[in-house]
Amino acid sequence: MSQFVQSIIYENRTVTILDQTRLPEEEHYEIIHDLAQAIDAIKQLRVRGAPAISLFGGFVLVQEAFRTTGTLAEAKQELLEVSAQLLATRPTAVNLRNVLDELNQLIVSATTLKELPVRLEQKALELYQTDAKTSRQIGVHALELFESGDRVLTICNAGSIATAAYGTALAPFYLAKEQGIPLSVYASETRPLLQGARLTTWELQRAGIDVTLITDNMVAHTIKEKQITAIIVGADRITRNGDTANKIGTFQLALLARAFGIPFYVAAPLSTFDFTSLSGDEIEIEERDAREVTQLAGKATAPAGVPVFNPAFDVTPHDLITAIITELGVIEHPDVETIKRTIGQHTH
Amino acid sequence: MSQFVQSIIYENRTVTILDQTRLPEEEHYEIIHDLAQAIDAIKQLRVRGAPAISLFGGFVLVQEAFRTTGTLAEAKQELLEVSAQLLATRPTAVNLRNVLDELNQLIVSATTLKELPVRLEQKALELYQTDAKTSRQIGVHALELFESGDRVLTICNAGSIATAAYGTALAPFYLAKEQGIPLSVYASETRPLLQGARLTTWELQRAGIDVTLITDNMVAHTIKEKQITAIIVGADRITRNGDTANKIGTFQLALLARAFGIPFYVAAPLSTFDFTSLSGDEIEIEERDAREVTQLAGKATAPAGVPVFNPAFDVTPHDLITAIITELGVIEHPDVETIKRTIGQHTH
Repeated sequence: MSQFVQSIIYENRTVTILDQTRLPEEEHYEIIHDLAQAIDAIKQLRVRGAPAISLFGGFVLVQEAFRTTGTLAEAKQELLEVSAQLLATRPTAVNLRNVLDELNQLIVSATTLKELPVRLEQKALELYQTDAKTSRQIGVHALELFESGDRVLTICNAGSIATAAYGTALAPFYLAKEQGIPLSVYASETRPLLQGARLTTWELQRAGIDVTLITDNMVAHTIKEKQITAIIVGADRITRNGDTANKIGTFQLALLARAFGIPFYVAAPLSTFDFTSLSGDEIEIEERDAREVTQLAGKATAPAGVPVFNPAFDVTPHDLITAIITELGVIEHPDVETIKRTIGQHTH
Repeated sequence: MSQFVQSIIYENRTVTILDQTRLPEEEHYEIIHDLAQAIDAIKQLRVRGAPAISLFGGFVLVQEAFRTTGTLAEAKQELLEVSAQLLATRPTAVNLRNVLDELNQLIVSATTLKELPVRLEQKALELYQTDAKTSRQIGVHALELFESGDRVLTICNAGSIATAAYGTALAPFYLAKEQGIPLSVYASETRPLLQGARLTTWELQRAGIDVTLITDNMVAHTIKEKQITAIIVGADRITRNGDTANKIGTFQLALLARAFGIPFYVAAPLSTFDFTSLSGDEIEIEERDAREVTQLAGKATAPAGVPVFNPAFDVTPHDLITAIITELGVIEHPDVETIKRTIGQHTH
């Protein structure tokens, strides 16, 4: 998997991240020294992507575990607090919660102070390696939905740097490249933080995959003029009925796909499913600072003090989703029943 | 009409423009010294908005007319060439063509060298004053479609600075303000050049009209969450069947309005109609420099060399348009017949 840039590195009990806010201008790696820095890195999106955040959170917990002092009971208490603080960083994505739930169980069940960090580390590394395989499997299944020459539109960055490798929505394009199948990607730039323009184009261009950048208001015209054949996106949380929270703008892509009669796919690992929520109505949508919209590179792009609505995500109702692609396969017409049938036995 | 900032000023045979590329940071006025500068101002969007460009083009022709030397025949020849060069600046909007057609007729029919610039000036001033009245009438008719408390979404800037006064799509909000009727405007920022963020919020905020800024990918979520009641946009060209070219992103707004079952209105003066084109298929869509998308304020927002698709306009099919609002009234269900019935006798 050396073809992929590593956005999260865990070595010698230390977590390092590729600062995604500095891309594409600079490939800057940041060593995470403590919990406060880790939390800031998540909140400021230096590390981002629902799977990547979950892997990062796991490694940060491990790093903290190796540094605990005191008794076993004190260490457990301290690490559960670290876990809670990590969980509170961003409300919408669920992968981090799912990873922390697994690690919290290990914390609670640990019987010696020495084994605690070791078992956590083992689990976090296992989750990391699994994520790369999971993403590749998503790519394998997604690629079955495309034909040579297809022109596929995506938003935000559900790419290799949002995961351990391959990505979710971008995984089929890496697989196609490996197999010599030509596919064209259209990347919607994804305001306000331009993850499509800065990250998706960067990683696909680097991999030699055909990618064209458009702005978010060009989608309908591009579907028509460039004869887009499908839309594929990642996900931050999928509820029991298939309603999907993802980067703001995803909902309108699904509506436009429906209007043009082209398929709309969601690509996500099982760890993106939230079986405690029945529908998208229960998902909390994070709203972020107005300055993300009114400033760029320190320059004002709007008058001072203008009111801004800046939701970071939206919810796409399941009936607009042609299929959800997981590592286990393709769930067509996602709803409570089809989802349960495909992956019900794999969920806790 | 002193409440409006003048974006085009003609005084003492000299044209001055408000440089719209510097807003909202700076209200910089630029004196137009010659034709080359005028053409550059249009191409670089320092003057913009289909009606404003047409008024500007008219005044530039007048300014040049007062400076011609030689015989009447030479002056006519020279001015028709100036007119042709102005017309060639941007291909999509039709208002400039309609204004230049009128002025060209005066050039051709002029019988003395002395009367030529005077008659052109008289006509250009008349068109300017008419545009302010026209825009106000559009506002009067559009306001009949709204109710107190409505939340209306718009894109780009079809505002007072895109016309002599009032604007087209924004005219009803000025009228509502005059009459004490509360309306809320949601401005889509309009990438790549952010006319919504930079210009619409600026002029509405300045006028004390309630405006909230969103990015272009937030439209569907905003319609749902903020219960948007209607969408209203301007136009750069309307063909005989009602198909409408306007700022890129308009087409998908119309599709989203349809998906949510809310009305989609186009506000434009008669000078925006192109009766030589039967449908939107005949409209040439201007594509602009990739750097508009990949750079902002000199900072790279995408990797160097990434392919970009950057159309400046798109075409909304007439069957997605609830009504076209002109100075003569509201044309519901616009098509060849309804348009001809309402405004057929006013066209040349």
